[in-house]
Amino acid sequence: MDPAEVRNEEIPQASHLALDIGGSLIKLVYFSRNDNSHTDDKEQRTLNEGLGVSSDGSCPILKGRLHFAKFETSKINDCLEFIRCYRLHLGGFQHHETPSNKIIIKATGGGAYKFANLFEEELGISLDKEDEMDCLVTGANFLLKEVQQEAFTYLDGHKEFVQIDHNDLYPYLLVKIGSGVSMIKVDGDGKFERVSGTNLGGGTFWGLGRLLTKCKSFDELLELSHQGNNRVVDMLVGDIYGGMDYSKIGLSATTIASSFGKAISDNKELEDYRSEDISRSLLRMISNNIGQVAYLNALRFGLKRIFFGGFFIRGHAYTMDTIAVAVHFWSKGEAKAMFLRHEGFLGALGTFMSYGKQSYEGLSVDQATQQFPMSLSHAGDKIYCPLSQDLNDSIECSVYATQHHS
Amino acid sequence: MDPAEVRNEEIPQASHLALDIGGSLIKLVYFSRNDNSHTDDKEQRTLNEGLGVSSDGSCPILKGRLHFAKFETSKINDCLEFIRCYRLHLGGFQHHETPSNKIIIKATGGGAYKFANLFEEELGISLDKEDEMDCLVTGANFLLKEVQQEAFTYLDGHKEFVQIDHNDLYPYLLVKIGSGVSMIKVDGDGKFERVSGTNLGGGTFWGLGRLLTKCKSFDELLELSHQGNNRVVDMLVGDIYGGMDYSKIGLSATTIASSFGKAISDNKELEDYRSEDISRSLLRMISNNIGQVAYLNALRFGLKRIFFGGFFIRGHAYTMDTIAVAVHFWSKGEAKAMFLRHEGFLGALGTFMSYGKQSYEGLSVDQATQQFPMSLSHAGDKIYCPLSQDLNDSIECSVYATQHHS
Repeated sequence: MDPAEVRNEEIPQASHLALDIGGSLIKLVYFSRNDNSHTDDKEQRTLNEGLGVSSDGSCPILKGRLHFAKFETSKINDCLEFIRCYRLHLGGFQHHETPSNKIIIKATGGGAYKFANLFEEELGISLDKEDEMDCLVTGANFLLKEVQQEAFTYLDGHKEFVQIDHNDLYPYLLVKIGSGVSMIKVDGDGKFERVSGTNLGGGTFWGLGRLLTKCKSFDELLELSHQGNNRVVDMLVGDIYGGMDYSKIGLSATTIASSFGKAISDNKELEDYRSEDISRSLLRMISNNIGQVAYLNALRFGLKRIFFGGFFIRGHAYTMDTIAVAVHFWSKGEAKAMFLRHEGFLGALGTFMSYGKQSYEGLSVDQATQQFPMSLSHAGDKIYCPLSQDLNDSIECSVYATQHHS
Repeated sequence: MDPAEVRNEEIPQASHLALDIGGSLIKLVYFSRNDNSHTDDKEQRTLNEGLGVSSDGSCPILKGRLHFAKFETSKINDCLEFIRCYRLHLGGFQHHETPSNKIIIKATGGGAYKFANLFEEELGISLDKEDEMDCLVTGANFLLKEVQQEAFTYLDGHKEFVQIDHNDLYPYLLVKIGSGVSMIKVDGDGKFERVSGTNLGGGTFWGLGRLLTKCKSFDELLELSHQGNNRVVDMLVGDIYGGMDYSKIGLSATTIASSFGKAISDNKELEDYRSEDISRSLLRMISNNIGQVAYLNALRFGLKRIFFGGFFIRGHAYTMDTIAVAVHFWSKGEAKAMFLRHEGFLGALGTFMSYGKQSYEGLSVDQATQQFPMSLSHAGDKIYCPLSQDLNDSIECSVYATQHHS
């Protein structure tokens, strides 16, 4: 969305801006109350209903909705402009220990450190840094426990939502595929350990893809893979065995022996290959490897369920299929790959929840929210809008308006 | 070596040709007796000494040496010409069940199937196919048990030979890095299981390298990596965290967060990157991943030692260093990466040993050989000559001249 367009739209009363600033993408989550600036009778009733009372009776509860947005980290100025237009930077909190009553915004990811000065200079706000892994786990646990139809399996083109039993959620392996990949064993709320990771992640797919094709965006590259045939680029078992399986060790002729291995013997140059085929081969290489490393880590700790998140997947069928097949193949069906509808916003959601951790002045988040289906608000770089194709509901949320202690 | 040159050289009396025909390379091992065609008095004595008697008294023992050669699979005609020039195809065996007394040559690898007809048409020989994993394990066990100064560790640029205790060799993990990668748990002679593998192998390094650089050979690409700096291409933790470590989870600023991840945000095209930097980044990506997947598999089975073989490594310092560091890092020092001087010829050596498995007519191999230091014979494509830089001795071998049973 062009920030210039935003000015002409209705600006919601937004608060609780939470930022997850990664190597490739900035993810934003923020809250808007269910009321708006021009209240009529009906809306006033809604507002009154929305203003409940918190469990200790001290704070009015504001009902509203969560909004999601994302930008490329390299286009951080677009993000700053978006925040300014929506006045999101005013929706933080003030702390009596903060000098000059500067507004504080919760943020996570490496960019919360790297761009702290930029946010201060441009928006006059201070970033309160939350630990990245903490936020990922908090976000994932929130989604898995509180949001219906969040987790699903994907096999043979068939998507199936999984009903999560709250008493049987832990332990699980959380695999966050961003630019790189983190693998976290989650044992409970705030109980986790980053047990592994791999540097072959979304940044590798898009970085290699940019160098090998003329694609201008991650999603263009992903889209191309639909029409691609990886067998043009990959060396299959059958290519080595003259079309035969190597059945003794369970390798069929169509198993990939060596990704990009066919490029070694061909007399072809880069420009002789179709971008579609390269994209598909790359996607399969990265996805399969992540699935394998994830499975091996799940095995280490006896974890049967692996949840995959992060903005690499984007609800892309072939990606999910490759990961699911890899987990199924290597675990001989013992472990299960599951995906999350809000895959890209785990860290940002966890950061959002962190407003509720401390008794800050201003608003705090009630983590035990109810969820109702409603339409999701999207904004940010239009290149990255997989959720809009896939999601028909979003997360309703309520927050406490706490006392001012200063 | 140009086959045309071979004609002008002395042709040794060669036998026991064994072929390992992989997706990228054909590896040859063959035997030559310590005598030669023009015997003088001294050589006759040597020949007499060389002709010992086998343990059961039935067969004269021929002492001699093993020769190693390799060719690119895509240049198989050079290999056929080499075999023809050296008359290696005559050094097989004949079986009374073989129609028309066709000479049989032992072979393994997918190419033993794929190119069987070609060998029959061009050289009039029949390939007797041995199982690839069987041969790899047989070759590795032979080297580890019988050859002194075969296995070594490599850390921080320091190479150290490992004395293998025969009684404490098993179990170990054998990682064969060819075009693709096989991981085999070895429990004894002929006792093994292929437990894992990855399709990110030598073919991926060279295939992607060919597409991304102007390099004309694998070794040119490998050589370039010496002068490269992967930080130009890779996204480091410090790039995301503004130069800081993410110390809470043990990631330093220089840890690679995402291989090729820097290529996503730069406004650079492929031609703006140096081949050196791309090569180094690729090498590190592949080597690190192999080290990690190998470690995770060693962990599964409680294996403390991992031996890496295959023609990907080529005694290349940075490759070994990356693999060793990956194993050390992920295992927290628990597991150890070890390398083999004859890394590229495991399968071919195992195939060579298979001549001794059956009571074929002709010569058979005595597997319990003595080894003496001597110079190694090299031939084949000169591009691939890492051993010549590194090896100062080779494997002495003796064979039985068995009875003719037909």
